[in-house]
Amino acid sequence: MGGGPVHEALDAMELTDHHCHGVTTGTLDRPGFEALLTEGEPWPGVSAFDTPAGVAVRRHCAPLLGLERHAPPDAYLARRAELGPAEVNRRFLGAARTGVFCVDTGFTPQRLTTPAELAEAAGGARAHEVVRLESVAEAVAARGVEADAYADAFRAAALDAVRRPGVVAVKSVAAYRTGFALDPARPGDADVTRAAARWLADGGRLTNPVLVRELLWTAVDLGLPLQLHTGFGDNDIRLHRVDPSLLTDWLHLTAGTIPVLLLHCWPYQRQAAYLAAVFEEVYLDVGLTLHHVGPPRARAVLEEALEITPFRKLLYSSDAYGVAEFYLLGALAFRRGLGDLLQDRVDADELGLTDALRLARWAGADNARRVYRLPDGH
Amino acid sequence: MGGGPVHEALDAMELTDHHCHGVTTGTLDRPGFEALLTEGEPWPGVSAFDTPAGVAVRRHCAPLLGLERHAPPDAYLARRAELGPAEVNRRFLGAARTGVFCVDTGFTPQRLTTPAELAEAAGGARAHEVVRLESVAEAVAARGVEADAYADAFRAAALDAVRRPGVVAVKSVAAYRTGFALDPARPGDADVTRAAARWLADGGRLTNPVLVRELLWTAVDLGLPLQLHTGFGDNDIRLHRVDPSLLTDWLHLTAGTIPVLLLHCWPYQRQAAYLAAVFEEVYLDVGLTLHHVGPPRARAVLEEALEITPFRKLLYSSDAYGVAEFYLLGALAFRRGLGDLLQDRVDADELGLTDALRLARWAGADNARRVYRLPDGH
Amino acid sequence: MGGGPVHEALDAMELTDHHCHGVTTGTLDRPGFEALLTEGEPWPGVSAFDTPAGVAVRRHCAPLLGLERHAPPDAYLARRAELGPAEVNRRFLGAARTGVFCVDTGFTPQRLTTPAELAEAAGGARAHEVVRLESVAEAVAARGVEADAYADAFRAAALDAVRRPGVVAVKSVAAYRTGFALDPARPGDADVTRAAARWLADGGRLTNPVLVRELLWTAVDLGLPLQLHTGFGDNDIRLHRVDPSLLTDWLHLTAGTIPVLLLHCWPYQRQAAYLAAVFEEVYLDVGLTLHHVGPPRARAVLEEALEITPFRKLLYSSDAYGVAEFYLLGALAFRRGLGDLLQDRVDADELGLTDALRLARWAGADNARRVYRLPDGH
Repeated sequence: MGGGPVHEALDAMELTDHHCHGVTTGTLDRPGFEALLTEGEPWPGVSAFDTPAGVAVRRHCAPLLGLERHAPPDAYLARRAELGPAEVNRRFLGAARTGVFCVDTGFTPQRLTTPAELAEAAGGARAHEVVRLESVAEAVAARGVEADAYADAFRAAALDAVRRPGVVAVKSVAAYRTGFALDPARPGDADVTRAAARWLADGGRLTNPVLVRELLWTAVDLGLPLQLHTGFGDNDIRLHRVDPSLLTDWLHLTAGTIPVLLLHCWPYQRQAAYLAAVFEEVYLDVGLTLHHVGPPRARAVLEEALEITPFRKLLYSSDAYGVAEFYLLGALAFRRGLGDLLQDRVDADELGLTDALRLARWAGADNARRVYRLPDGH
Repeated sequence: MGGGPVHEALDAMELTDHHCHGVTTGTLDRPGFEALLTEGEPWPGVSAFDTPAGVAVRRHCAPLLGLERHAPPDAYLARRAELGPAEVNRRFLGAARTGVFCVDTGFTPQRLTTPAELAEAAGGARAHEVVRLESVAEAVAARGVEADAYADAFRAAALDAVRRPGVVAVKSVAAYRTGFALDPARPGDADVTRAAARWLADGGRLTNPVLVRELLWTAVDLGLPLQLHTGFGDNDIRLHRVDPSLLTDWLHLTAGTIPVLLLHCWPYQRQAAYLAAVFEEVYLDVGLTLHHVGPPRARAVLEEALEITPFRKLLYSSDAYGVAEFYLLGALAFRRGLGDLLQDRVDADELGLTDALRLARWAGADNARRVYRLPDGH
Repeated sequence: MGGGPVHEALDAMELTDHHCHGVTTGTLDRPGFEALLTEGEPWPGVSAFDTPAGVAVRRHCAPLLGLERHAPPDAYLARRAELGPAEVNRRFLGAARTGVFCVDTGFTPQRLTTPAELAEAAGGARAHEVVRLESVAEAVAARGVEADAYADAFRAAALDAVRRPGVVAVKSVAAYRTGFALDPARPGDADVTRAAARWLADGGRLTNPVLVRELLWTAVDLGLPLQLHTGFGDNDIRLHRVDPSLLTDWLHLTAGTIPVLLLHCWPYQRQAAYLAAVFEEVYLDVGLTLHHVGPPRARAVLEEALEITPFRKLLYSSDAYGVAEFYLLGALAFRRGLGDLLQDRVDADELGLTDALRLARWAGADNARRVYRLPDGH
């Protein structure tokens, strides 16, 4: 974690965070904060501060609140409450130096900032929106629809959603709903109607495999880049079913259509790298992973993610959700991890400095700008 | 592999080895010793000394026998025979500085020390017992039982076994028998009776999937922590079927009941870490792995095992079996690997020293004491 | 990537490359060269030079063409064309210092050197041949055969092929055709006939699972070592189906017959290591992987591949195909990666120098000589 021109360039660069969520605007007590620190519920006797992410918060976030490094959790939360959420969010989001956010607006069990509010809190960043297709489908079901009209209604609603200003991509959480060991083919109309009838009768989240497949194929029709959650998340995941290599048949069938962005990927970052190396329109990030493993392991994860990956294929995301700390930690871990990786290769004369600076720019911002066709300037 | 206060603390600490076996009490010739060095049979032309574990034995164990580092295998075994098994066991077990052993007593193809004998050979350690449920079930079958009485007889025998003084946990080797791609639900009585009828007629080891499921659910009823072999072992394993993430559905169904301890885990230590991060009662170790990879790779494996793991969730085990060398090598690799990992984070100011010392104590002893409710003092 | 006696020994050693292909003899334009740099087709806007392999070519190969390190792609290709293919091949193959090549002659979508031509271009190396069984089977089908005579005709053709002078092994690309989640048992005659009837009627590549199984069992009958592609390759692979641990049941059934060499393995090098540790006749390499990850990651991959592997079980291969650069890069990455791994263990006194030199010789040449029963001298 030394210095050098690659680190300097990454430090000076405004990142494009191609996948994140909003941040809470309310005050958080210790249970509330700990619940957001982990991918699960808080447990009695096991503090969320006693995790790699919790250690990273005390180390890297405490100084931004005016506390000493490694401040104790209670002191941390007291100071956090004292400053208030607006100031806390402003400090961490500002320190993340993110110029562009692509915000998944489809998961809001609690009040979060809108994309515009998030960008504002970051001190004048620009925000785009990512439409979560499961939320669109579930809203269609909630409004009421006949089973044989579901497919068209979902498609129309999705089209409406992506035509809103600022929308640059869609996202699916098929990983949480069925995993990827699905029949890759586009389902037939009759199958979709039958599945919709069952779902509309039973209610609940969209978990029917036929409808999940239909959702993924609708994403292809929409023509926008598709973000796919892969790898770890909370305990709703069945990890062995979200290995992105399970998507291979589907990627063959959809080759030449839309860009597919594999999010998170851990512990399957090498499998994701393989797909990014052999499919023209497959990209990956290690968002979510970076703030959970923290700076001490960010480089190791990035090294695996980049082992065979074309340098046009790695993007930056924080996948931060809820607590402003994660926007900073994600950005910090990415800058340090990628900086160490590239600078060491330059120092060992395995990579030219000009190339290293270019690859840093690509991963930090340009690859996202290219995939999402973001306007110049951002 | 430097020094520093974390290494000093780990060196001074008596470890709690939450999963191991007994040690042989007889003299071992070279084929006998080599057979115990590997997870398989000896092969002509491929010495078990020419493995990472064999290299570690010559390096780290030879000096304790009064030989030079890297002593040749024949010299090593000659000196070992000269000293005799009691003295050899005393030296290695003593040098391991393990204060508490939890001993799996259910796998004894040859004469091994009892838990009390093991503790005595270690110079006054304390030993607890872990009951292997497959052995209990197979003893019930061997005694003779009607199929429709099997489930009750097994449950009664398991209850008897765990009520013996000193028993702190149960263990299952379902990994070896069926792997984890099982129906997670508790099997119905009629299914169990049918399966028992087949098994009791056919004989042999307990490999029927219905009965293995019934065994795992009986473990839940017993209320003690359950140790589960996961990941690598000898060639009876089908590695792809012992990925612990295959247990996710079962962990959901049993959440809120017993602690589940994932043993070994390699090469699925990240998958195990995920489960430990999202299920309150899931724990892991990298026992067996550490002495097979040896000190040069212990840190790398621990780094992966701890990538996202709450620090309350990692335990120490040697999983030593048969040869006293492995109790020492497991302990040495753990102390060095964890010491290097934590001390480097302290040196990089990524972790406070006080926290590092606490996390070392947790992994080395306190987490096991907490899970198994071991008496204070040990 | 320092110096020391292990590096010196590896630098002085002629490697045995136990699995590679021929090299092109024609001039390559930029698209043609880039297509061979990757495991896929060239993509508009994503240069194959912007990959770890491409970076390694510019760094390590440019100087051998008289260019500066990190020369730009266009300059590189201009100079390459200027020198002409014969001179380019001579330079890289000579610099690889490979004494023995075992050449897979069964994949030739374009004109490649024969084994003898490859050895000659390398400055007097020795070449042996590896017979690709799928090519033999497809030639039998192309010549025309009755379904019920297919099995015998294939066996006879395979026997003829392996009796040619210089043949030391057979290879299967079952990984590409079906993956390894196959019924491990030898298929019955009637099943083979039925499957052959379907294949002979439909034409195309051999992808019928029954016929792939029959091919693997025929390999056992031939008695020669069997090379198996495992892990990554181009996008015809379904990565999750080529995890070598899926072969476990088949390895049990064929134990005690032929040596089985797991090629490439990434990202399943730990799974391959497990098999090599528990099956007497299983070996592995990380060929193909090494030039795709390049020198900066070769050691990390080798560290995982050797974590529990008996040192008799790792072989060197380049799996170079088409471009002469890969013979050099594979050899360079192997020498550096293994040299760093072993020398650091010597420097840390974890391994004796004499042992380290022996293990380097084994992996670099002796293990291959032993498995393939190559004549002394080579």
